[in-house]
Amino acid sequence: MIKNWDEFLLPYEQAVEELKVKFKSIRKEYRDMNEYSPIEFTTGRVKKISSIIEKAHRKNVEIESIEDIAGIRIICQLVDDIPHVVEHIRNRDGKDLKIIEERDYITNKKESGYKSYHIIISYVVHTAFGEKEILAEIQIRTLAMNFWATIEHSINYKFGENMPEELKERLRESAEVAGRLDEEMSKIKFEIMDAQEVFMIRSSL
Amino acid sequence: MIKNWDEFLLPYEQAVEELKVKFKSIRKEYRDMNEYSPIEFTTGRVKKISSIIEKAHRKNVEIESIEDIAGIRIICQLVDDIPHVVEHIRNRDGKDLKIIEERDYITNKKESGYKSYHIIISYVVHTAFGEKEILAEIQIRTLAMNFWATIEHSINYKFGENMPEELKERLRESAEVAGRLDEEMSKIKFEIMDAQEVFMIRSSL
Amino acid sequence: MIKNWDEFLLPYEQAVEELKVKFKSIRKEYRDMNEYSPIEFTTGRVKKISSIIEKAHRKNVEIESIEDIAGIRIICQLVDDIPHVVEHIRNRDGKDLKIIEERDYITNKKESGYKSYHIIISYVVHTAFGEKEILAEIQIRTLAMNFWATIEHSINYKFGENMPEELKERLRESAEVAGRLDEEMSKIKFEIMDAQEVFMIRSSL
Amino acid sequence: MIKNWDEFLLPYEQAVEELKVKFKSIRKEYRDMNEYSPIEFTTGRVKKISSIIEKAHRKNVEIESIEDIAGIRIICQLVDDIPHVVEHIRNRDGKDLKIIEERDYITNKKESGYKSYHIIISYVVHTAFGEKEILAEIQIRTLAMNFWATIEHSINYKFGENMPEELKERLRESAEVAGRLDEEMSKIKFEIMDAQEVFMIRSSL
Repeated sequence: MIKNWDEFLLPYEQAVEELKVKFKSIRKEYRDMNEYSPIEFTTGRVKKISSIIEKAHRKNVEIESIEDIAGIRIICQLVDDIPHVVEHIRNRDGKDLKIIEERDYITNKKESGYKSYHIIISYVVHTAFGEKEILAEIQIRTLAMNFWATIEHSINYKFGENMPEELKERLRESAEVAGRLDEEMSKIKFEIMDAQEVFMIRSSL
Repeated sequence: MIKNWDEFLLPYEQAVEELKVKFKSIRKEYRDMNEYSPIEFTTGRVKKISSIIEKAHRKNVEIESIEDIAGIRIICQLVDDIPHVVEHIRNRDGKDLKIIEERDYITNKKESGYKSYHIIISYVVHTAFGEKEILAEIQIRTLAMNFWATIEHSINYKFGENMPEELKERLRESAEVAGRLDEEMSKIKFEIMDAQEVFMIRSSL
Repeated sequence: MIKNWDEFLLPYEQAVEELKVKFKSIRKEYRDMNEYSPIEFTTGRVKKISSIIEKAHRKNVEIESIEDIAGIRIICQLVDDIPHVVEHIRNRDGKDLKIIEERDYITNKKESGYKSYHIIISYVVHTAFGEKEILAEIQIRTLAMNFWATIEHSINYKFGENMPEELKERLRESAEVAGRLDEEMSKIKFEIMDAQEVFMIRSSL
Repeated sequence: MIKNWDEFLLPYEQAVEELKVKFKSIRKEYRDMNEYSPIEFTTGRVKKISSIIEKAHRKNVEIESIEDIAGIRIICQLVDDIPHVVEHIRNRDGKDLKIIEERDYITNKKESGYKSYHIIISYVVHTAFGEKEILAEIQIRTLAMNFWATIEHSINYKFGENMPEELKERLRESAEVAGRLDEEMSKIKFEIMDAQEVFMIRSSL
């Protein structure tokens, strides 16, 4: 039982802020070197209290073991950017973060159509009141996967177990189309990467 | 001829900052009222000097008449959000901005596959050194249109007039798929809008 | 009586964001031109609900007539910067803001030691739900006045009418010293302004 | 000799961003717990290239050994906050940062009047291109010390070795007055700390 939610969530909020800055820096570095960046943008959030409670109840686990109270989302332009981001995070394993588990929902997409690469990490924050080690979930997706997942998430939240079959079908169809958009972009990935570097070099004064 | 580019661009930079804040506020208001927001996010930029010069040269016009030195991009989840955003901007015509021209590239998409709704406005900034009226271009697009347009823009920039026909064809194909993704999402738009409101209401403590 | 505080406060929040951006731009412009800026920094806040209610009750007025629900604070390095900021705001009167009243607590400092220049304005925001005209209070102060005022504000809040005379005396003494610090800096104001311009020019690559 | 300054400065820029977020979090945590925060605000900057070159030349050292290419400034309301901040940083020694040296210019103020507490640290950044360990300088000061130091810094920069004796004298006098302002505030420090907590508790809805 959590007595003081504000106090409990502080280290998670701090972890989200630090991890966001760390990954935003990665993009900035590539672009400052006029190189194509595998990271298009990074967002982060602390899970809403009601969602935390609902998840702990649904999975019948302790609050502290919920893996995505602190969540980071790294969005890429192309599917082929994702392995590069995963590689970068693996290179930091044991340093400023520790990889607990990787879940590849791109190779093994969920039945709903959901696709994403998840990395659960353990991260140490140095708070005003001492050191704390927390779990965080990093989701790596393409823009198209992210668009679909954002839409699907709220529809799922609203209906829970009771989503009409027709709606599930439509969501699976749009997941298909999102996947096709990613494939089309992949076909011209080298042209994309090279052109974006050319753009950065030529347009810098 | 621009003698001092830093001085010339100051009012455009200020306009971009002010317009970004104005449109970001719109999204915040809808969400603070637990209502679906037609604006997903807003970005803005001042055109790079090299691009301004190239455009003035290409169109054989004065620098000051370039309409998109100050650019705002409003991104929507659904195609049906776009008319709502256009309506909101029309309601401000004559107040804190003045509409000069509207260009509907959604109904009349460009041959390349480009789709977007453009509104050219005139905007007054009160600078440290006096009042200045500048032109700005507001582009309103869906997430999918924006993804495609960002990719196409740098490829276009790299090749100029000389884009290989095969590449143009691939870009047109991906524009098609992006359009289909928008259609799929439109089919379930009411479910999307309602679910996102339910999510905001239920998860607020 | 306010039925929905979130809804009531939205236009005030938007006004604070827009005014902050407008005044931050002023500083940026001076510095981009390598000129001394009379504005050192700008902050803004919406008054806390409990403070709004307390003030309306204390002054026996309608909530809507409270002038500082939206508050902007412009901080200057030197006392002599303040008239320049006031002048800039007067130049915008009737344009994007309307001056309702000016209160000079620098020439006429309060008995407590409080010094600041207040300008009450009327400002129009274009919200998602329509146009709204709201009151806002702009406070212009030096760094030293601001430091003192921040300290005094919370002590005053805690004690209300019942501040021990000894504490009032100490606050008046520190207001004196803050004033002396401003005077010392004023004696070398030309050296300060010139040196900061030199620094900006020489250190830009 | 630095061949590519953009590349050289990247890890320093990243370190500044990460350290700023880490210390801003500390303030947020105290205030979220409705407790007085010893940190009033945190800023950071990467030293300008011209200043780095000038310092390396003046001290006749390698660029890489300059300790303040990455600089963090932690500003406190009261002198007595400074030891608390120093203690917090010492508690992190060997964890996410390594203390190289501490320099107490508060107990041992400089002849010019300069007062500040400096901590030189070594910090590891995980960049897009690999791990890098860099030096950074954390300066801890009161608002009054910071105001004085900012003014003195640009005047010093302008005149270099050739500052007129009269100007040096005026700066020493204003350092005296800044110190007196800090003393006056210290006399009522318990009232300040307690009142700010009361303010946060009572005004939270």
